[in-house]
Amino acid sequence: MDLRQLGEFGLIDRIQKRFPPPASTVPLGIGDDAAAILPSAKQYLLLTTDSLIEGVHFDPAFSTFREVGYKSVMVNVSDIAAMGGAPRFFLISLGLTRRQTVEEIDHLYQGIEKGSREAGLDLLGGNVAFSTGPFFISPTVLGEVPKKEMITRAGAREGDGLYVTGTLGDAAAGLALLQKGIETKPFARLVRRYRSPQARWREGRLLAKARIPSAMIDLSDGLSSDLGHVLKQSGLGAEIEADRLPLSSSLRRAALQMGTDPLEYALHGGEDYELLFSVPESKTRKLEKMIEDGLIAARRIGRMAPRRIGLRLKEPSGRSRSIASGGWDHLKRGRK
Amino acid sequence: MDLRQLGEFGLIDRIQKRFPPPASTVPLGIGDDAAAILPSAKQYLLLTTDSLIEGVHFDPAFSTFREVGYKSVMVNVSDIAAMGGAPRFFLISLGLTRRQTVEEIDHLYQGIEKGSREAGLDLLGGNVAFSTGPFFISPTVLGEVPKKEMITRAGAREGDGLYVTGTLGDAAAGLALLQKGIETKPFARLVRRYRSPQARWREGRLLAKARIPSAMIDLSDGLSSDLGHVLKQSGLGAEIEADRLPLSSSLRRAALQMGTDPLEYALHGGEDYELLFSVPESKTRKLEKMIEDGLIAARRIGRMAPRRIGLRLKEPSGRSRSIASGGWDHLKRGRK
Repeated sequence: MDLRQLGEFGLIDRIQKRFPPPASTVPLGIGDDAAAILPSAKQYLLLTTDSLIEGVHFDPAFSTFREVGYKSVMVNVSDIAAMGGAPRFFLISLGLTRRQTVEEIDHLYQGIEKGSREAGLDLLGGNVAFSTGPFFISPTVLGEVPKKEMITRAGAREGDGLYVTGTLGDAAAGLALLQKGIETKPFARLVRRYRSPQARWREGRLLAKARIPSAMIDLSDGLSSDLGHVLKQSGLGAEIEADRLPLSSSLRRAALQMGTDPLEYALHGGEDYELLFSVPESKTRKLEKMIEDGLIAARRIGRMAPRRIGLRLKEPSGRSRSIASGGWDHLKRGRK
Repeated sequence: MDLRQLGEFGLIDRIQKRFPPPASTVPLGIGDDAAAILPSAKQYLLLTTDSLIEGVHFDPAFSTFREVGYKSVMVNVSDIAAMGGAPRFFLISLGLTRRQTVEEIDHLYQGIEKGSREAGLDLLGGNVAFSTGPFFISPTVLGEVPKKEMITRAGAREGDGLYVTGTLGDAAAGLALLQKGIETKPFARLVRRYRSPQARWREGRLLAKARIPSAMIDLSDGLSSDLGHVLKQSGLGAEIEADRLPLSSSLRRAALQMGTDPLEYALHGGEDYELLFSVPESKTRKLEKMIEDGLIAARRIGRMAPRRIGLRLKEPSGRSRSIASGGWDHLKRGRK
């Protein structure tokens, strides 16, 4: 069906039907001038917005509309996770093009629905507009966090341990495989991590509730770049140990096939949406116990150091070299 | 300066500096993974998002970046006003193109700043991305309204009076003059209303506080279209009296020059951002007194009627005719 036949209000009706009636904390959902919620007085309300634009943040040749919808939710949920928050509500602003069919928009919303169900988000409303392209989707996600549990980028202290959840570099390697036209079947894990990232809100809540991290950020632009934000806002430097970086076997195999160093993906590759966090010495035993007990998959990769040392990588040989933040800059449109 | 030289983080720093440190209700503003606010427990938190896309919602030949920034705030504030709410916070998602200069973005933010200062909004954060175009700006605005004062589209009752603030059709006539290339100097008021609309949040709060409206909506798509939403959600019809529609003398002159009926602009022209509201008979005296006292500029234009009569216009001759909703449909990309 052509989107113009359905029209704006037809599409809104369709979206409204897909998303179940909101919870009791949402007195007014989709369909009025604004939505209304009744937030808790005991918690901070967290807000974030991050867009996916066709041709910039995704390539329609590499991702389906379902995947784009899912990912657009997850990249925003990841920001809530990085504050130690629980995802709660969202709005979606869509810029459609005349090429899009109603079926494609249905697929997009299937992906949005999947992501929002997993993360426990209620849809509050949004906006749909038709443009000359490119297609864009710009969700705003709200979360909640008990006041004393909120974690910023600014709380790290010298000597704190530096930890990361999951593995690093997978998504960037997955995208590189797609871009190089390499057969991706043996690397399904990497491509899946690029197309359908899993935001770590469960891990973020668990860590926040246990009051473990002194600072936290999600890895969207790449370890070197995102750690750079923590260093800047905490007024510190850091030393990373190369042989402690969590690299998946898929990443190692893919890097071998592409003739590149897997460390490059782990250090500078974006879109892993893992959590990077600093942990005071007094809390490391508690965290290591949680890791041993299988409550959370995380690993120590280094430590916070004085500002003057900058960001350094300690190689297995024992030699240490300075590394520059090499993540993605959206305006410079490429690696910094 | 070229935007790519400044970079994403340079631009964010620049924006952060422009907007003053947020109030005590904003524990965490721009610059972390998410912003944090502490909303009141006694009020509903209202949320809305509405985009302006270049070539769809504005033409760079007709509006400056300063005007686009200002308008992007006002169209969202207008949605908060329509709920009876006070504007409080906002986030901005920007899609920039490589053509844009830092000066243009500064102008855009000057307009955003002007609008947000007037409306009393604190900037919480946002997102900037570079795309192949068109430029878009997608604010999310939050407001607050005491629980018992929130006004939806669904509360109108048969027999309620129908009122509108300000004058109708000015913005659409202003745009028509620009599009036809007619000398706009004699019609500065109309063009200003198109370029820099004033959202009626003061009027919305005043009406809500006095518990006057049974239903309310802002006029973004046009009287016939927006009234249609109220009729649908309240399960009613309505009768409008043509000779009671508030037409400015500028609109009458412009319509004369363009050889069109000013009523067409008033009935079907969008972007006036006035408030349309229904008032129970028991409240009309109070409202009429407020109007007489100069507290609010509003006028009765008709009444809510049974659903079966649909939307009718009573002409000065006494004849009544059915009118179709003729407002803007963003996906159909034109008049319905």
